Order: sequence, then C-alpha cells, then structure tokens
Amino acid sequence: MTTDSNLIGFLDRLADSAGAAIMPHFRAAGFVENKAASGFDPVTAGDRAAEQALRSLINENYPDHGIMGEEFGNENLDAENVWVLDPIDGTRAFISGLPVWGTLIGLMTDGKPSLGMMAQPFTGERYAGNGERAWYRGPDGARALSTRPCETLADAILFTTTPALFKGDDRVAYERVESQVRLVRYGCDCYAYCMVAAGYIDAVVEVGLHPYDIVALIPVIEGAGGRVTNWEGGSAAAGGRVVATGDARLHEQILATLNA
Amino acid sequence: MTTDSNLIGFLDRLADSAGAAIMPHFRAAGFVENKAASGFDPVTAGDRAAEQALRSLINENYPDHGIMGEEFGNENLDAENVWVLDPIDGTRAFISGLPVWGTLIGLMTDGKPSLGMMAQPFTGERYAGNGERAWYRGPDGARALSTRPCETLADAILFTTTPALFKGDDRVAYERVESQVRLVRYGCDCYAYCMVAAGYIDAVVEVGLHPYDIVALIPVIEGAGGRVTNWEGGSAAAGGRVVATGDARLHEQILATLNA
Repeated sequence: MTTDSNLIGFLDRLADSAGAAIMPHFRAAGFVENKAASGFDPVTAGDRAAEQALRSLINENYPDHGIMGEEFGNENLDAENVWVLDPIDGTRAFISGLPVWGTLIGLMTDGKPSLGMMAQPFTGERYAGNGERAWYRGPDGARALSTRPCETLADAILFTTTPALFKGDDRVAYERVESQVRLVRYGCDCYAYCMVAAGYIDAVVEVGLHPYDIVALIPVIEGAGGRVTNWEGGSAAAGGRVVATGDARLHEQILATLNA
Repeated sequence: MTTDSNLIGFLDRLADSAGAAIMPHFRAAGFVENKAASGFDPVTAGDRAAEQALRSLINENYPDHGIMGEEFGNENLDAENVWVLDPIDGTRAFISGLPVWGTLIGLMTDGKPSLGMMAQPFTGERYAGNGERAWYRGPDGARALSTRPCETLADAILFTTTPALFKGDDRVAYERVESQVRLVRYGCDCYAYCMVAAGYIDAVVEVGLHPYDIVALIPVIEGAGGRVTNWEGGSAAAGGRVVATGDARLHEQILATLNA
C-alpha cells in the first residue's frame, strides 16, 4: 500500500492544494500588522484554509480514509489508512517571515507511518518518503534523499527547537547530549528533520511533540536511511520525546546519553 | 553618489557573481562529508570563491574603490568608496543546509554605509537599500521594503543569533530585553535583519559583530524606515554590540533597557 504510485501522486496534489491555501497568508499585507496589537493571526488563517483544502481532497478521493488534524479534529481514526496533517509546522518561523516552516502530510497504515511529505511552498522544496526510499524536489532539481554517516556526538550537528522546551530531568538529559556535539542550532522544526534526511545535519532531539508534528517525517527519514524513535527507542509516531538521526550508531549513542 | 543607478545595477551584478561562485558548494555532493571527519570545508571554499569573484568585478569596474573583505583582507581603505564584503554570512545555517544565510555586499562612502544588499541565491531573494529607500526582489515578485510599527517590547518579535554569545554584563542586559518581548527566536544572522526591513519582525540585538556582518544591512534597514545603532545609540558601522529595529520608539526602549 505504501508504494502505491497513486498515493504518492496524491501526496503532491495535497501539497499543491495546501500551498495554494497558505501562500496568500505568508508575508502578506496583513502580515505586517502586529498580531498582539491587531488581533490578526495569519498562521491560524493559513492553517485553517489549508487543512480544509486537504480534508476536502482526502474525503473526495479516499472517503474510507481517516483524518487526524490540528485545527478540525479527528475523523474515522479506526480506518486502515489515516492521514495526519499539520498545514503549518513551524509557526514561529512563519510569523517571522522565514522560509523554514513546512506543510506536513503523513499517512498511517495499520497504525504505522507509511508515507509522508514536508512541503515548503515559498522555496518550492518537497521532501518525501515511504520508509523504504525518500526523494526531494526543489529549485535545484530532483534527487533521492540519503542520510550521511556520523558515528559519534563529537562529529555531530544537532538541532532542537529551543532548549527552553526541556524541563527538569529532560533538560539535564538534553544538556548531556548538547554539551558533546560539534555544533548545535535552535529553531527550524520540521525543516531540521528534512536536513537529517538530506544528509546535511546529523540529529534532532525534541520533547513535547504532537503526532502531527512527527508522523509525516518518519517515512522520510527512515526512507533516507535514518532512524526516528522516542527517547526509549520505541515508535515516535505518538510524538512526545523524539530523537531523529541519520546514522544508527549515533542514534544509539544519543539514546544512551539521554538515559544515562 | 548613493543613488547612482549605475552603482545599484552593479550591486545586482555583484550578487549574481557571488551566487554563481557559492551555489556549487551549497548542499553539494561533498557537503555530506562531515567536515570534522573529512577536513572538507564547503563554507570556506564558497566564501573564498565568491570573495575573489566580487573583488575582480570591483577592481575591474571601480579601480579607485577600496575593499574590506573577510577572507582576503583590506585594499585601499582610504578611498572615498569602500566595499565591505561577507560572501557567506550565517555559516552555521550554510553548513546545515538551511536557506537563511546570505551574501552581504555593502558600500561605505566617506566613512558611512551608503548602499547595501543581502542576496540569498537558493531562494532567489534580494533585500537592498541606500538609506533613503529599500527594495526586495524574490520568487513572489518585487516591492518596496518598509518596516512595521511596534511601539513596545511587549508587542515585539526579537531575534538574536544565540544567547550564548552574550557574556557577563552584556548577558544580563540582553536578558532584560528578552524577558519582556512577545516572541524570541535564535539563529538567522543577516536574514533576521532583512525580516526587520520587510516588516515581519521588530528587532535584532547582537554582540561581537564585525563591520562586514552589518555594514551592508544598515542602508537596507534605514532605507525601509528602521534604525540600526550600537548599544550606545551611535553608528553601528564598526560592528560590535548592535541593535536594529523597525520603529524608533521600540529602538529607544531597547537602548534604555540594555543600559538600565
């Protein structure tokens, strides 16, 4: 089912539709109204318009599929196939005008992430995968995605949204990892996971994720040769505390360091 | 001199040339070799190739102009016009594959920043200005740049490279500012200043800048209606501790908070 070429083509149609719904809200005229002052919220407007567009396409083409979305709740979660949607992942980047947010479109089949895409409509980039292979299309062409080797923390480039998200023991555990890496960078949300899949960075460590923050990214990273788990080494599909890496050796070292 | 249309056209030629020199190094095949492991350094390769290309064009077209560059030092700094170059500002973004680095091309006339551009060759964006006006060209078209109103810290979106750069008293002063804003985000270097010029964010506060990190950005932000000074309120052209804002009222509040 996950290699069904109809579904892969449908993924691109979904991304086209979400991008068309969101782009009028990104860097638009009303954008320069400060949200706090005006009450205008371009993220929510874009998120809702895109999620409605995605739901319509799914209901029309795959009426027996379920849907899990951030803005409009869940439908038919007992279905064999359930779409997991986050039209604008990286809301802080979005409201700051930065092109490092993305539309996340994931598919769960029999409870497991089977197909996923991150689409960035401003740059025209798409990162997609089905757990067995992963592919990219962007302004610089199309190619297969493949993670890079990185054996140890001392060689690794690590991303996380912000260290402020880690609380208590999680903060201590995270800092054990951060203190050993070559380079750490904050921000970037879904975009950072795609940089792991593309072999430009080595790891992402996060906490507090929702399923719609991560489901779409798992088949991309795994399809590119990387790993995504929770901090215990189990499935990351439920969100929570997540580690993603391009190299299984680094993955084991990060899990051991987090749980030391 | 600063509104000389020949110089403005020349700025685009310089950006074209730098982009052509850098792009073969961004996300390229050798990119996935981990620098620590292989000794390969795509930033230095791209930086040097671009700075050589820029210097050649300047020497050929404006042989009486001076040049200040990161990689190849200074020439003729006593000239009336001195170019200030940083081919890849945002090296951590560059080596991580993120499209939020930029090529900075500035011109000092009689010791003052008079013309500047940030060019991002992957997204195709250019942010430029001459202190009196500022303009943008990108995948979504061309338009004038204008900062947005933001009267107080409580409404402001603030960017800084990373809080880890602030030491001692500077850290305390910075945290007084950060603790009062609506939203803070780390990373993005030159790209953040352009988001101020475009009216998407409100302020950047940094320390430890070189002249080539900031000179090109001053005419862009000032041309868009914003302010750029050092923490004392004087010229930021020498780098060091810098504040950039889109609204003079917010600028005064940040200076007062930093110096409280």
